[in-house]
Order: sequence, then structure tokens, then C-alpha cells
Amino acid sequence: MKLHILGCYSATPKANTNPTAQVLEISNHQFLIDCGEGTQVQLRRQKIKFNRVKHIFISHLHGDHYFGLIGLISTFRLLTRETELHIYAPKGLKELITLQMKLASSWTNYQLIIHELNSKESELIFEDENVEVHTIPLDHRVYTNGFLFKEKEGERKLDIEKVEEANINVAYYRKLKQGYDVVNEDGVLIDNKKVTLEANKPKSYAFCSDTAYSEKILPIIKDVDVLYHESTFLDKHEKLTVPTKHSTAKQAATIAKKANVGTLILGHYSTRYGNLHDFKTEAQTVFENVLLADDGKEFQF
Amino acid sequence: MKLHILGCYSATPKANTNPTAQVLEISNHQFLIDCGEGTQVQLRRQKIKFNRVKHIFISHLHGDHYFGLIGLISTFRLLTRETELHIYAPKGLKELITLQMKLASSWTNYQLIIHELNSKESELIFEDENVEVHTIPLDHRVYTNGFLFKEKEGERKLDIEKVEEANINVAYYRKLKQGYDVVNEDGVLIDNKKVTLEANKPKSYAFCSDTAYSEKILPIIKDVDVLYHESTFLDKHEKLTVPTKHSTAKQAATIAKKANVGTLILGHYSTRYGNLHDFKTEAQTVFENVLLADDGKEFQF
Repeated sequence: MKLHILGCYSATPKANTNPTAQVLEISNHQFLIDCGEGTQVQLRRQKIKFNRVKHIFISHLHGDHYFGLIGLISTFRLLTRETELHIYAPKGLKELITLQMKLASSWTNYQLIIHELNSKESELIFEDENVEVHTIPLDHRVYTNGFLFKEKEGERKLDIEKVEEANINVAYYRKLKQGYDVVNEDGVLIDNKKVTLEANKPKSYAFCSDTAYSEKILPIIKDVDVLYHESTFLDKHEKLTVPTKHSTAKQAATIAKKANVGTLILGHYSTRYGNLHDFKTEAQTVFENVLLADDGKEFQF
Repeated sequence: MKLHILGCYSATPKANTNPTAQVLEISNHQFLIDCGEGTQVQLRRQKIKFNRVKHIFISHLHGDHYFGLIGLISTFRLLTRETELHIYAPKGLKELITLQMKLASSWTNYQLIIHELNSKESELIFEDENVEVHTIPLDHRVYTNGFLFKEKEGERKLDIEKVEEANINVAYYRKLKQGYDVVNEDGVLIDNKKVTLEANKPKSYAFCSDTAYSEKILPIIKDVDVLYHESTFLDKHEKLTVPTKHSTAKQAATIAKKANVGTLILGHYSTRYGNLHDFKTEAQTVFENVLLADDGKEFQF
């Protein structure tokens, strides 16, 4: 599992900061999460192939989380993309994209499928044989979802030397990976555990931005390997979290601790702060395993 | 008169090219012309003060000419701008901005005045005591205008030594600047020409992008000091200008020559070309005084 931070600053960009966008590599997918202005350029800079992006998840319709989407959709068209594109976003986005296309007398030459979200409960919005994506309802000024990405329990791995030694027919390999005991060429029952190894532990990632401190998300994100939680402010500006419905670094760490996550990544920093390290120091008073997102950074888990 | 090129490349951005946006400094205004994605960051990089931008002119509603507009409008709001902002753009923009504001549950705290354009004839869209702005109807795939910026004839300048020598009362200085002869303290009629100097020659700038080759614009842009004319293609790709309704460098130069302009600036290059200098070489086979726009360049006239 790999996370590319394309942008991790809050609303007003400076000359060298980018609004929210990140690419999560998991189970052979490259999921784009949020798409602030300039995301297409950031994708280029990080050498992420446009055609590998097939699913885009938009948390909410504040500009710093989606103003780059229409440009990306248009560029895909200009590059004669044929791969279909799925977008998961709050209700309203389809009307907006349709209007922008109409004003430009244009449409996409690839299939653009917009899945509009409006549920206030966590729901499964994507699933294939390897991975599931669930929404995480967040508490922000407009309808907002975080996203939980969860690998499924993988298959057991063949210990190929032992499998051959046990004289098992190739036709049974699939059954072995699924955990079954099988009968070998000599008619002997072979204990699965003796010829296979544990599957890789499934990884999980929760993206929570933007949100006020909310313990309602704890059951959904419990025990995730990695939590990205917004920390727009430091504790000294905690009172700003009330009207804005954002969080402090300390609040993010409290959520991380209560949800028993593996690693906390902080981001969505207000551009008022000069020194990101203060966010880490503050969070670590509550929860030890803290990383700082920054534009262009990559994390491997 | 000063022109800042924020971006001058056509639709699909590379890692280091920007779509169309430029700032024209003329008669104490800073006019923003087009506003492709990333314009707000480019304004920051070029240290143009946001509050100086009071008028934005949008040529057409293809993304590479306006996708940065909504981000700029939102950032102005976040920075608690109070200065009113006028946008001149094709009909449809107001509906789009309104929808985007609605989806974000937000509105501007400053006055945002959108002047929607739909005339197919050149029209005067802005005027104050120093400058006029007229549309230049262009020939593109959607409704598109170029813009002509024209300083008005300025006042004559006092040759202050001669004015004092001629013993003219200060009360008459205004009349002198306006070109009138006046009577001095001794009752003698003073010839205006003898105590004043020519006014500065009014400057003019025409922005023409995007457009197919169109001689219809010649009467409007005749004799302008500076013409920015798109040159998406080189002559070897001339056939691409037909379906796309763009121009070649040679066609831009032909327009410059026929309109008898002072200087031609080329821009809106397709990103397929490695070497911009080929655009200049090609244009100069037709018209000598050619400059190449490039992102971050400034021209002074």
C-alpha cells in the first residue's frame, strides 16, 4: 500500500502549496482521493499515469477538494482516453459537470460514471475481489464523506516445495489457496496448514478530511493501519474549529488513539502556520505514531 | 503598458506549462484576461496583488481559459476581499458560478458583478476616463470574444518653465492641458502650442485567442500597438486549424501585417511542439516584429 500526497494544504493556496488530492495505491488500484485545483499537474509531476486512475473519490464540494476535477476530466478527453472513469461524489456534482460540458459544447469520449452520494450512514460504494471502499460520514459545514479502503482477506500462499513433496495434483492448488485440505495423488489427505503459508495481512486506509472532531467515526475506522485525519489548526487556535468545523492536531491524535489505528498522517494544514513540525509535536502528546503529509511526499506501508 | 504572461499554452497542461491567463497593466488598471486552471498560483508567483485585480475578461468557456476562475473567486472570499469584482464573460458563466456557490453553501462577501456577453458584434464593455475595452468577435468552436484595450487621448503636458515665463495664472492650467489658448495676467493671448507639450501617445492592446484565421477582425484591431494572436499550430499542421478553429503562426502574422499592428505576440501554443522558436521564425516570414509569449514573461511597451 502506497500513498502519494499531491496536495495537503487547506483552502487558500500559496505559490508553493497545493489543495487536497492524493493517490492511494492498494490491491493494484490507483484511487484518486479529492481533486483540488492543479491536481492534473501534480499527477504529471509525480509521474502517475492518467489511465491508471479509474476511480475518483470526492469528499465534499468545497473548492479546495474538487476544483481540479473538471480540468482533469477535460484533459482525459483531449488525450482521447477510452478507459471508463468512475467518480464518487456528493449529489450535485453531476449537474455541475453537465453544465460545464454544455457550456463548452463538449462531452467525454470515454464513459464517465458519476455515483452521487447522499446517505448519512456509512455505505459500501465500491467492491471487487480484492478491496472494498466504504464512506465515513464526517461532520463538516456541507455534506462530507471520508473514505475507508479495506483490502479483503487474501488467499493463503502455496509453500511450493512442500506442495510438490506431498505429490498434490496442480488441479488442487486453487483449493489449497482457499484453505481447504486436499487428497494427494496417492489418496492421502493433506493438511492445508502443512503445505501453505499465511495470506498477507490485508491493509486498510481511512481518509478523513474535512471534519470537526467526531467520535461517531470511531466504529468505522477502528484498527485501520493508516488514518489520514485533517488537522487544519493547532490547539492554540482550537476555538476556530467551532465555526469552521475543522480539527486540531491534538483532536486528530485523540481520534487516532481512540480508534487504535496503526499510523496517523496529519494534513489539511491552514497556510497560516510556518512550521509543520508543531503539528507533529502537538499530536504526539496524545498518540506516538504520527507522520506529516506534505506535497509530493510518498508513504509506503 | 505592461503585459504579464501567466500562462500561454493550449489545453492539456504539462508539468511546467500553464493554460491561458495574462494581466495587462494599462492606465493604472490591472486587467486579468482569461483565467485557466492555476491562475491564482501564477498571480502569487508573479507578485500581482489580488486586490488590484478588479476586472476579469473571459474570452470563452473552454476550460483552458476559465477553469481557474472559480478558485480565484473563492480565494478572494476566504481572504475577506471587500473590493468589488467585475467579470466579463460569455452567457452561461453566471449560472455556473451560482451553482458552484450553492453546492459549497457559500457566497462572496464582496460584490461580484458578472457581465454576460452574447453579442456577435464588437461592443464597448468597459469605459472610464482613461481607457476603453471593446470586444472582438472571434471565430472559434464556441462563442468567443477577443478584447481590445484602448487608452484615450491624454491631456497635453505643461512645459512648466514656459508657462511661468508667460505669466499665466494657475487657474488656467487645466484649460492649457485641454489644448485651449488662454489670456495671461497681462491680458495677452497665449498660443497653447507654445507653452504645452504633446500628450503621451495613447496605447492599445488587442487580445485574440482562441480563433481561426479571420479577416473580419481587421477593422477592429487596425493599427493597435500590440496584438496578442493565438498560434496553436505551425504551418505544417495547418489542416488541424480547420476542425479545431485555431490558427498557425503564419496566419497570426498575416493578420498582424494586414492590420498594420506595431508588435505581434504569439501564444496559445499546442504542447506538441518542443521548440517555440519555430513559431517566431515562421511568423517572421510574413511580419517582422514578432515576440514569443512564455509563462512568467513580462513585456513593457
